[in-house]
Amino acid sequence: MAEFAPDPAFDAGSMVIGELALCHVRLQTDARWPWLILIPRGVGLREIEDLSAADRATLIAESVLAGQAVRAMGAALGRPVEKLNMAALGNVTAQLHLHVIGRRADDAAWPAPVWGVGTSEAYEAQALTLGLGAARATLNL
Amino acid sequence: MAEFAPDPAFDAGSMVIGELALCHVRLQTDARWPWLILIPRGVGLREIEDLSAADRATLIAESVLAGQAVRAMGAALGRPVEKLNMAALGNVTAQLHLHVIGRRADDAAWPAPVWGVGTSEAYEAQALTLGLGAARATLNL
Repeated sequence: MAEFAPDPAFDAGSMVIGELALCHVRLQTDARWPWLILIPRGVGLREIEDLSAADRATLIAESVLAGQAVRAMGAALGRPVEKLNMAALGNVTAQLHLHVIGRRADDAAWPAPVWGVGTSEAYEAQALTLGLGAARATLNL
Repeated sequence: MAEFAPDPAFDAGSMVIGELALCHVRLQTDARWPWLILIPRGVGLREIEDLSAADRATLIAESVLAGQAVRAMGAALGRPVEKLNMAALGNVTAQLHLHVIGRRADDAAWPAPVWGVGTSEAYEAQALTLGLGAARATLNL
């Protein structure tokens, strides 16, 4: 039987944080935004409608928790989040995944969405440690 | 006591379809995409986290229904939806709202997100009638 695995395309821009009840959680390694990706652990999922009603409720609960984690990351990095952006797009990587992104009025794309804007910026080691620590503490991972 | 009202900014690009249990439903009047907007009827809502757990579950249920409505619109207009895009952004209009958009690999923005791409195109009267009819039938509105 097929088992869940994140699409290898996620490896290029993100790293694993851990596993919530439903979702595999990744950090988008772009220092411009505190940005998590939730990937429900199922095989062949493309749309939210592909989840059971119970899993849909879990997904929205985990997305709210991820929003809190993104806020914690922003605070730890001295750039408090002013607005959350949440989106399930999947036009490029079809495997169902939800972006949870912390936005500020002074960020690199505001008020536009972040996708396709400029070039990803690598985290400095200390910032990555701080951000990951804040995210993990909030997510209990 | 303050009552719910959609932000007047929505009037510029969308029209009212009706009311679901939780959400005020609008059609984005851009003929390039079958596109609905769900606005939970609460006062002062900005983020999904501002909803109660019960309302969050209703929101995701209504978003799945809206996805089916967007698929019905695409089918009625001879352009079946190949991928759904769902997003709560709110960087421009802060009132909590969820975009539900039907995408195709031959659409005007694919694979990029739709926001900020090109110029909105008005519906022809017959297409608007067809699309609205399909959406309303699916939404029971």
